[in-house]
Amino acid sequence: MAAGRVKDVGILAMDIYFPPNCVLQEELEAHDGVSKGKYTIGLGQDSMAFCTEVEDVISMSLTVVKSLLENYKIDPKCIGRLEVGSETVIDKSKSIKTWLMQIFEECGNTDIEGVDSSNACYGGTAALFNCVNWVESNSWDGRYGLVVCTDSAVYAEGPARPTGGAAAIAMLIGPNAPISFESKYRGSHMAHVYDFYKPDLASEYPVVDGKLSQTCYLMALDSCYNTFCKRFEKIEGKKFSIVDADSFVFHSPYNKLVQKSFARLYYNDFLRNCSTVDQDSREKLEPFSGLSMEESYQSRDLEKVCQQVAKNLYGTKVQPTTLIPKQLGNMYTASLYAAFASVLHNKHDTLAGQRIVMFSYGSGMTSTMFSFKINEGQHPFSLSNIASIMDISNKLESRHIVPPKQFVEALKLGEHRYGAKDFVTSQDTALLVPGTYYLTHVDSMYRRFYAVKGDCIATPISNGH
Amino acid sequence: MAAGRVKDVGILAMDIYFPPNCVLQEELEAHDGVSKGKYTIGLGQDSMAFCTEVEDVISMSLTVVKSLLENYKIDPKCIGRLEVGSETVIDKSKSIKTWLMQIFEECGNTDIEGVDSSNACYGGTAALFNCVNWVESNSWDGRYGLVVCTDSAVYAEGPARPTGGAAAIAMLIGPNAPISFESKYRGSHMAHVYDFYKPDLASEYPVVDGKLSQTCYLMALDSCYNTFCKRFEKIEGKKFSIVDADSFVFHSPYNKLVQKSFARLYYNDFLRNCSTVDQDSREKLEPFSGLSMEESYQSRDLEKVCQQVAKNLYGTKVQPTTLIPKQLGNMYTASLYAAFASVLHNKHDTLAGQRIVMFSYGSGMTSTMFSFKINEGQHPFSLSNIASIMDISNKLESRHIVPPKQFVEALKLGEHRYGAKDFVTSQDTALLVPGTYYLTHVDSMYRRFYAVKGDCIATPISNGH
Repeated sequence: MAAGRVKDVGILAMDIYFPPNCVLQEELEAHDGVSKGKYTIGLGQDSMAFCTEVEDVISMSLTVVKSLLENYKIDPKCIGRLEVGSETVIDKSKSIKTWLMQIFEECGNTDIEGVDSSNACYGGTAALFNCVNWVESNSWDGRYGLVVCTDSAVYAEGPARPTGGAAAIAMLIGPNAPISFESKYRGSHMAHVYDFYKPDLASEYPVVDGKLSQTCYLMALDSCYNTFCKRFEKIEGKKFSIVDADSFVFHSPYNKLVQKSFARLYYNDFLRNCSTVDQDSREKLEPFSGLSMEESYQSRDLEKVCQQVAKNLYGTKVQPTTLIPKQLGNMYTASLYAAFASVLHNKHDTLAGQRIVMFSYGSGMTSTMFSFKINEGQHPFSLSNIASIMDISNKLESRHIVPPKQFVEALKLGEHRYGAKDFVTSQDTALLVPGTYYLTHVDSMYRRFYAVKGDCIATPISNGH
Repeated sequence: MAAGRVKDVGILAMDIYFPPNCVLQEELEAHDGVSKGKYTIGLGQDSMAFCTEVEDVISMSLTVVKSLLENYKIDPKCIGRLEVGSETVIDKSKSIKTWLMQIFEECGNTDIEGVDSSNACYGGTAALFNCVNWVESNSWDGRYGLVVCTDSAVYAEGPARPTGGAAAIAMLIGPNAPISFESKYRGSHMAHVYDFYKPDLASEYPVVDGKLSQTCYLMALDSCYNTFCKRFEKIEGKKFSIVDADSFVFHSPYNKLVQKSFARLYYNDFLRNCSTVDQDSREKLEPFSGLSMEESYQSRDLEKVCQQVAKNLYGTKVQPTTLIPKQLGNMYTASLYAAFASVLHNKHDTLAGQRIVMFSYGSGMTSTMFSFKINEGQHPFSLSNIASIMDISNKLESRHIVPPKQFVEALKLGEHRYGAKDFVTSQDTALLVPGTYYLTHVDSMYRRFYAVKGDCIATPISNGH
């Protein structure tokens, strides 16, 4: 099919995988000896997923890709492009995409474009844009694109540690999608900044300036929203305000920032003189209209008032997106799409015809606001089937809560294993559901071997030639 | 402009930067105590570029982007997408693209999509495809794309060390290009393999199995060529053979592999019964027609005969592409495009109307064969202007040859500096041309500071907020 003839390119199908173990933020507060509510209310987080020594970003992505192909009955030969977004580096040269090729090589399909896209939590969005653009380009060959976001977020002991998380998400890309892109409104903000980065190559942990990162996030949000609104107005001939979208999905390092972000959009609408900001809110925000932008990022009073006036809209437009991020924590590249999966899960039967605005942020920094338009879709690519296959309630409920001590031990072991060679894992798969890939060993040449739970013999699935 | 209306999307302009210092392979042979000709004839290499402590992949990419914008008089506001391909990891989260944003932020342009693409030497090709697809997609906003390939290839002491190199290339992407894509013939081969990878995160050096990597390269070449030929035949209704392209440009880890690769294509044409293989060659190759594929990769006799029968065609279709790779060494992501720059340099006045076939390979593994069709282009985006701006002869001739001892010392210092913090470089810019970016220091938070040679005061160009 020639470019320009395809319509409604976007997400046809989704699946999500996350580790079966988690730690409760409430218990972590007690373990860390911090004040009660610091993580649960201060960060707004309920629990946190983490990889034990038998799982990593490669195993999680193998699991979710296999799961998506099987659940939607997609022939691996029908995939023509595979893009991975991740910031969890296991190898500095070999892409995660090449590990995933094992699934396709088995079926005789080695003609699959795409590599890994990387910039902090934004890589998944870059991968998604790349796949969509491919389908709309002259080089599209009629097959599906597949996007994988996979990350394990771990932090050194200290205030950032409770903001970890882990998950992998797979999205099938093609035309006539129930979740399609409104490509023309998109706004990006990219800049050089050291808010969160990973310069200590031997360590899995980032260097992070939490306060700076939060300000950068909000600045980027303002900038993207303004560009998004300008483009919308230019094309649609009318002002955009938050009432013009039914859901707002944010990259979620922790839920509190999502609350602040939506409130910030409300404040933007106030500054932009949107008629949709009611008189009462206007009066409450008026005292802050003289603040410089810099001051506005620092004002606690403004923050409070914004959250108060935006509260009702938050409940309808944002709350349904927060389920998975609150339960799993920051999944880096997968975070935004886990939030999106939450709204599919919570509202799939009422989304048709709606607009969903997405805000992707990666430190360093890269950010984009873009939007989806939603339709019911056709089986197997219908909203209800996607929600049913993701099976989020079940997956969340069947998780195993482990005590903080065990979580800390897993991270300690991870410190030793990161970048290491010549070790065998416990191969303890008791908590894994059948079909889950897991790490068995790393040989003396650093080569990693994985097996699948439930396979007759747990032999490595490939020697990597 | 809507998708599907743009024509001849491809490369409008190019520029190249490489360090001003190099080591002669002949002198390196003597220094390493290996047999004479091992590097110059065995590898086919003349000299090798390398970064001293004041340059790295970030500084080289800043230099080449600034240079391209200035030389072609491109307003930085006219760039809408910026993609970087690299496998030289300085930070595992923050993309090189974000460092490059400094150039655009200064001009008030922060709305630039794109991040870094990574898989060994293939990342530049992924970045290029992403930019081209963007221009052909619905989300294109009418501005230019910009692709940067930047790498510094260094190896531990041993047989791979002479296969290093360093360079950065920038390519401007848009419609009506003198170098446009024939998107429909493309063939890719991707698989999971451990031929070359970087699992030791604290070291800049790769783990490499040279013999395996060479076999993988040739297997990938066969597979891509077969897919390319099939697609060509399906669309054009006639068989493709090497006479149907005027130049073949290969990713060049070292020149000897390029010689073998072109010979291998000739062997493929023989196996495919192409009428373009003459009777004499056919008779010489006939004894090898019973070899299994695996045997064919190992047969020295076959290799010799292939190179012999392909020799004349190599001289016209490949030799002109080998100039820069033979002089600079393996530039990883920049290697293929440096080879392409060589043919533009050598043959820009005769290329119009011709087809150029490109073969991109990245270990791990990812590979694609694709083709360009060439037209003269219009100033400033004409072939002659591109060749004139790249100024390759001058740049090569003005290089400073350093003794092997100095090269080895630079690598030793690099080992200490890789992933380190809190140091100041010599700031010795004697060899750099004005306008070159260089590293001044890395602070206690691992933040890197660069200056531009010739700027009034050599202060860091940005504090990164």
